[in-house]
Amino acid sequence: MAVGRFYLSVLALSSLGSMCILFTIYWMWNWHGGFAWDGSIHMFNYHPVLMVAGMVVVYGAASLVYRLPQSWVGPKLPWKITHASLHLMTFILTVLGLVAVFRYHNDNHIANLYSLHSWLGITTVVIFACQWFLGFAVFLLPWASMWLRSLLKPVHVFFGASILSLAIASVISGINEKLFFSLKNATKPYSSLPGEAVFANSTGMLVVVFWLLVLYILQASSWKRPEVGITTEGQLLLQLGPGSQPFLVTYMPVTLRQPNEPW
Amino acid sequence: MAVGRFYLSVLALSSLGSMCILFTIYWMWNWHGGFAWDGSIHMFNYHPVLMVAGMVVVYGAASLVYRLPQSWVGPKLPWKITHASLHLMTFILTVLGLVAVFRYHNDNHIANLYSLHSWLGITTVVIFACQWFLGFAVFLLPWASMWLRSLLKPVHVFFGASILSLAIASVISGINEKLFFSLKNATKPYSSLPGEAVFANSTGMLVVVFWLLVLYILQASSWKRPEVGITTEGQLLLQLGPGSQPFLVTYMPVTLRQPNEPW
Repeated sequence: MAVGRFYLSVLALSSLGSMCILFTIYWMWNWHGGFAWDGSIHMFNYHPVLMVAGMVVVYGAASLVYRLPQSWVGPKLPWKITHASLHLMTFILTVLGLVAVFRYHNDNHIANLYSLHSWLGITTVVIFACQWFLGFAVFLLPWASMWLRSLLKPVHVFFGASILSLAIASVISGINEKLFFSLKNATKPYSSLPGEAVFANSTGMLVVVFWLLVLYILQASSWKRPEVGITTEGQLLLQLGPGSQPFLVTYMPVTLRQPNEPW
Repeated sequence: MAVGRFYLSVLALSSLGSMCILFTIYWMWNWHGGFAWDGSIHMFNYHPVLMVAGMVVVYGAASLVYRLPQSWVGPKLPWKITHASLHLMTFILTVLGLVAVFRYHNDNHIANLYSLHSWLGITTVVIFACQWFLGFAVFLLPWASMWLRSLLKPVHVFFGASILSLAIASVISGINEKLFFSLKNATKPYSSLPGEAVFANSTGMLVVVFWLLVLYILQASSWKRPEVGITTEGQLLLQLGPGSQPFLVTYMPVTLRQPNEPW
């Protein structure tokens, strides 16, 4: 039942994620002349597409790897490699997205990093880079002790979800900013809600729905990976005598973790 | 130790929250002529201040009520009333903030609700209003069954944190938008980072830091209210014979919850 609902959510998420990317491509293609890696405004057009694809859609998918029921059994290492690889893909898309906007700015003598959108966006990417390298060094490479991993895991999980939320705030402010720029001298200004404005606003709202669904799946307890080795679980309520304090007993067969097993 | 760190975090949060509000007031007062409830641009100036105060700072404080160690013991009802009252205060500040921008727009024949900032902002307020009324009806009024409360609690908690994140995306896009408007014809444009731009961008980044700290305190497990009646906890690892499956036993004395006790 829970697994069925999980796969339904994944299906909804895949559709939403694809729509987020396709809508952003269509926005840039239909209203802004498409794409070219040449330093012109057509190079800038890669920026929103790569950031939505990287920091939102692939990032969201990467963050949900440990929610796949297949990842709950057997060794964790292949799933860690999948998680790290998808996040590496996010990072590559993000760097390309940054190159697109920086080169467009530089080639056209436009200042870099002045708007709040850019301040927040670059901060998000820097935190994400630190998170990736720290995650790689501590959770994927074999040197770190269990103590260090236990200490850093909640921090890694917290920043994992926070970086996605920071990316959403950056994307929303970016779409808003782009529309104010591109509709500044238009015959139908932003305030009269021309087709482009409705389309791009809707794309922004779609990104928000995608993000909410990722957060929901991430925090739903029944979809979380059980701790290593736990196969069944039960509870007993024991009251030893009529006047005594009742005891809640949770019992579960466990397989003891090997000291060097990555988790 | 955990309690000491909690109060240190609360101190940091109070300072950050006060700074968020004071910085927004100073931005509007120093660069935009201050405040007047008269339909002019000075009425608009209430909008950012009331939204940051309401949907960010008071909302953040309200969401953390159950993390106060005092709320962990004794009846939960007074803390529920505090939680609901602070959120009601948020709602009142938010409605006043919306009145400020709508009346300014209407009195000056400016269109309402066209930017992505406004679409996301109004969606956030509508979701928040539903969350408040549902929370009031189900968790504060005495009619709802334990079954209904258990069913809705994770949804309430999920939307609680999500609404704050949506508010942050709205605030960031709002500050960004306001700066593009107000520095459009300035002698020093936004792209040359004049004093106002640096100040307002920094205010936006401060709001983000405040929000991250609220999320961190919300999710830190050692600061969560223990379940009703649980006073101590322990674990035993039992292995009944050399070849047998080991059992992990968690035992805890419990006080059985009364069927009608609000929680």
